[in-house]
Amino acid sequence: MSTEQQPQRQIKLVLAYDGTRYSGWQRQPDRTTVQGTLEDALQRLLGVDTRTTGCGRTDAGVHALRQTVTFFTDSTMPVSTMPAAAFRPALNRFLPDDVTVLEACDVALDFHPISDIVRKRYRYVISDRADHEVFLGRYCWQRRCPLDAERMHSAAQALVGTHDFSSFETTGSPRTSSVRTVFEVSVQRVATDAAHLFSVASSSGFVVLEIEADGFLYNMVRTIVGSLVEVGRGAKEEGWLADVLAACDRSAAGPTAPPTGLFMVDATYSS
Amino acid sequence: MSTEQQPQRQIKLVLAYDGTRYSGWQRQPDRTTVQGTLEDALQRLLGVDTRTTGCGRTDAGVHALRQTVTFFTDSTMPVSTMPAAAFRPALNRFLPDDVTVLEACDVALDFHPISDIVRKRYRYVISDRADHEVFLGRYCWQRRCPLDAERMHSAAQALVGTHDFSSFETTGSPRTSSVRTVFEVSVQRVATDAAHLFSVASSSGFVVLEIEADGFLYNMVRTIVGSLVEVGRGAKEEGWLADVLAACDRSAAGPTAPPTGLFMVDATYSS
Repeated sequence: MSTEQQPQRQIKLVLAYDGTRYSGWQRQPDRTTVQGTLEDALQRLLGVDTRTTGCGRTDAGVHALRQTVTFFTDSTMPVSTMPAAAFRPALNRFLPDDVTVLEACDVALDFHPISDIVRKRYRYVISDRADHEVFLGRYCWQRRCPLDAERMHSAAQALVGTHDFSSFETTGSPRTSSVRTVFEVSVQRVATDAAHLFSVASSSGFVVLEIEADGFLYNMVRTIVGSLVEVGRGAKEEGWLADVLAACDRSAAGPTAPPTGLFMVDATYSS
Repeated sequence: MSTEQQPQRQIKLVLAYDGTRYSGWQRQPDRTTVQGTLEDALQRLLGVDTRTTGCGRTDAGVHALRQTVTFFTDSTMPVSTMPAAAFRPALNRFLPDDVTVLEACDVALDFHPISDIVRKRYRYVISDRADHEVFLGRYCWQRRCPLDAERMHSAAQALVGTHDFSSFETTGSPRTSSVRTVFEVSVQRVATDAAHLFSVASSSGFVVLEIEADGFLYNMVRTIVGSLVEVGRGAKEEGWLADVLAACDRSAAGPTAPPTGLFMVDATYSS
């Protein structure tokens, strides 16, 4: 009655998804989530319940360009012995149109997609056109007043370095420390195909924030964006963001920007 | 019992819409259509049933960047006497996110949005990346094999001029003549923000067809695209498209491309 036991493997996937119709990343009963959708696809492929770990628990409506996800398998199904790269087309056959596996590879059994992160990058896209974004509305914050992207960029530089970011953290978060290191932040106006492909009207493009740090507090990017927009629309001075940061008090900051404009771009690992 | 009668006006609107969740332009009972949605908004704004005429009856899933629409109003409601430009914000308050009024103006009572057309322009967007288009999938045809856009462009030049386009017309169409004049057609690879905004992977962009003519037969653009893709993927020679045109026989052409990649770009009027 011996069964042949495959040696356990850990597979790393890189996933892209449109978060619009999901109640976020994390599996929840009776909700459609990205993790739940992926684990259902793994169940169908491998024939056994398979739990995954994602590098970022994106909220409802938040998108991912490269979410790193790992899972262990010791399934004795023939499929579990296939080269890791083959998981990509195999899983994509079971995934809906708005979730796709971009890469799949074997990683060491002690690799961890959260604790091994060295840097993580987010992007936030804002439309400041007066017209409604008919085609790309679910991928941006439609903030219809004109924004000064250069002013926002200058103001944002106050965030670079190691600081207590509790002014930009949704209160009640369970983190033990609110100190993080921001390596790089930029705000720029990106000319867009919205002009070439999805519009005949001249378009001023999108205002795009990119931020890279060793980690992020809960709602940190969205609160930074909500605050920078106050600077960009002229309601606050450029130096105000530094004051907000120094206050270490969430009530000093601007509103939390909506999830639609937020993209998890990538995570960088030491190994 | 006299009622004050406003002089009748004709208003011209320019509309943009994402056709994804609509059963096409034309109003139909028990279906969600763009025309039905617009007429419901007009009913709410003007308080009376208002019928519209659109310059193009786009099919289910087809998008519009600038659809010209007209309606007459002799409503005695105060709103009907407002400057035409005010219809734009007023209607947009009653329209869903995926339909928007870009322009509104008064036009002569004898203006007709279909019969006064001089030129009409369509665009068709194709993705030939191996990866699934997670974010822009509803705005393109995902034809995963690599396409030679220059070869498609050269082949397409056979269409320019006045020809019988019955090879590219879905049979059973009620048109009396299948002769049309194509003024201009181009196929090019458009580098895209999909690379800047919605992807970190290097992207080869989209293959985009633009075509302008004095009018189009039913499914003409989609059949031209379906045929050009045969040339672009190397299944047919460049000269084949001229043979298809000369055949005046739908069975000579390639398949009809799906509606998702098609955009009504604009209509040009003599007046």
